[in-house]
Amino acid sequence: MLAWVDGRPAEALSVRDRGLAYGDGLFETIAVSAGRPRLLARHLARLEEGSRRLHLPLSLDQVEQELLTFCAQLGEGVAKLMLTRGDALRGYAAPADAKVRRILLGYPAPAYPVANFEQGVSLFPCATRLAEQPLLAGLKHLNRLEQVLARSEWSDPACAEGLMRDQSGRVVEGVFSNLFLVLDGQLLTPALSRCGVAGVMRAEMLEWAAGQGIATVVRDVEYAELLRADEVFLCNSLYGIWPVRQLEAHAWPVGPITRKLQTHFRELLDS
Amino acid sequence: MLAWVDGRPAEALSVRDRGLAYGDGLFETIAVSAGRPRLLARHLARLEEGSRRLHLPLSLDQVEQELLTFCAQLGEGVAKLMLTRGDALRGYAAPADAKVRRILLGYPAPAYPVANFEQGVSLFPCATRLAEQPLLAGLKHLNRLEQVLARSEWSDPACAEGLMRDQSGRVVEGVFSNLFLVLDGQLLTPALSRCGVAGVMRAEMLEWAAGQGIATVVRDVEYAELLRADEVFLCNSLYGIWPVRQLEAHAWPVGPITRKLQTHFRELLDS
Repeated sequence: MLAWVDGRPAEALSVRDRGLAYGDGLFETIAVSAGRPRLLARHLARLEEGSRRLHLPLSLDQVEQELLTFCAQLGEGVAKLMLTRGDALRGYAAPADAKVRRILLGYPAPAYPVANFEQGVSLFPCATRLAEQPLLAGLKHLNRLEQVLARSEWSDPACAEGLMRDQSGRVVEGVFSNLFLVLDGQLLTPALSRCGVAGVMRAEMLEWAAGQGIATVVRDVEYAELLRADEVFLCNSLYGIWPVRQLEAHAWPVGPITRKLQTHFRELLDS
Repeated sequence: MLAWVDGRPAEALSVRDRGLAYGDGLFETIAVSAGRPRLLARHLARLEEGSRRLHLPLSLDQVEQELLTFCAQLGEGVAKLMLTRGDALRGYAAPADAKVRRILLGYPAPAYPVANFEQGVSLFPCATRLAEQPLLAGLKHLNRLEQVLARSEWSDPACAEGLMRDQSGRVVEGVFSNLFLVLDGQLLTPALSRCGVAGVMRAEMLEWAAGQGIATVVRDVEYAELLRADEVFLCNSLYGIWPVRQLEAHAWPVGPITRKLQTHFRELLDS
C-alpha cells in the first residue's frame, strides 16, 4: 500500500516522533474516489482547528497539495493523514523549532455489508465511557486509547458499531461514527464540547439538513432520549449513513428522514 | 544516541505502528546508573499492570532481558522504553495476532539545577485540567496530549514544574512528577483512581515511609489542603525529590520529613 512521510514514499519514520511518544498530533480519514479526496474543505477545516488548539505550526497549503497528489496516485480507497509535532527531545515541552511531520497512508475502500446501509445496524453498548476534556473535545487527535478499549469490548460481527457515552451517562457517538436522532420532528446530535470527535460528515449533514428546512439541534443528549427517538442513525465520511436498528432490547424503525439523508449523501459520495 | 526497535539497533519504525496511530501502548522512563536500571522491579510491575489493563500480549521476561542489555550498553543516563501493540490494520480493532513492539531510547541524564533539590522549586498553576478516566488512571500510557498542553503553558525557567488538577479542581500531580503533602503529621498523596500517573518513585516512597513509621495516606486531595500543608514535595524516578517552595502567592518551608526522604532516596538513586 501507498505510504508517504513528508511528501516522499516511506514505510518508516523516526523512533523519536512525538506522535509516537505522546500522541502529539492529529489525523484525518478521507474517502478517495476518482483520484480526489471527498469533503476536502471539511477535512482541512478540522485540521486547521486542531492545529490551532494544539499549537501545531501547520502549513495547510502544503498539506493540501500533498494530499491532492497522494489521492491522485491512490485513485480509489481511503487516505489516512497523520500530522505530528515531529521529532522529540525527551520531555513534554515542544521544541521551539518543531516541524510538523506529514504521514499519508493509502488503504482500499472498506468492504462494509450492503445490509448496514439498507437494513441498518445493531449497536453494541460499550462500557468504556468517554472522559470529559473540553481542551481536546471535537478534535481528531492521536490519543485514541478510549476508542481502542471500546472497540475491544465486542467481536460479534452482528454489531457493526458501538455506542459511547460520557462519564455522566449521556449519549455521545459511535466508536468510529457520529450519532443522530430524529426526536419530536427535529434532527438532534450530541454537542461535542466535553468529549467526542466532530466528524466532517456530521458537519456536512447539519448544514445540508438545515438548508432542507429540517430543524437541527446540537445539545447534550440523555440516554432516555435515545431510547424514545423516532429514528436513529450513524454517519462517517467513509460509509455515509447507517440506520440504527437495534441496541440490546430496544429497536428502532428506519424512518423517512434517515432515508432522505441517505439518498442525498450517497449521491454526494458517489458523485 | 542509542535506539533499539525489537531488540536491534534502529532509528526508525513502521509508519503503521499503533503507538503512532492511536497512542496504543505504554512507556517507562528509567534512570540508568552503572549500567543498571534503577527501580527495575517497580517499572516492570507497572508495565505488567498496564499490559493487563490494555490487553497487551506482553512477554515481561523478554522486555526485562532486553532492558538489562540496553542499560548495560548505555551505562549512565535515561532509558525510555515504549511498548506498542505493533502494526495496525486501519481501524481501532486490534489484530488477533498483534505482537507487542519494543522501542528503547537512550538519553543522557537530565541536568536539573542543584537548587531544585536544595532550595526547592516553584510550581506553575496549569490551567489544563486532567480528564477523569478510571480505565486509564494510574497508567503511563502513550496518550499524553494533556501533559503536552499543560507543559506548553509556561516557558519561564523559574517554574521547574506545573501543578495539575482534575476537572473538579482537586490536586493530582505535577506534569512529570507525583505530588506529596505533609499535613497534620501525615504523608499524603492524591489517589490516582480517576486520573494521573502512578509513579514508581511514589510507590517506593509510600512503602519506605510506612516502614519508617510515618503515617501515609492515599486519598482525594482538595486544593485548600495543598495550601495549608506543612510541607509539599514532588518526586519522580529521575530526580528523586524536589521540595515545593512556591505556587503563585503561596509559600511553603522545606520541612524535616521532606529532608529525611531526600536523604534516603538520594542514597538509593546514587547507590
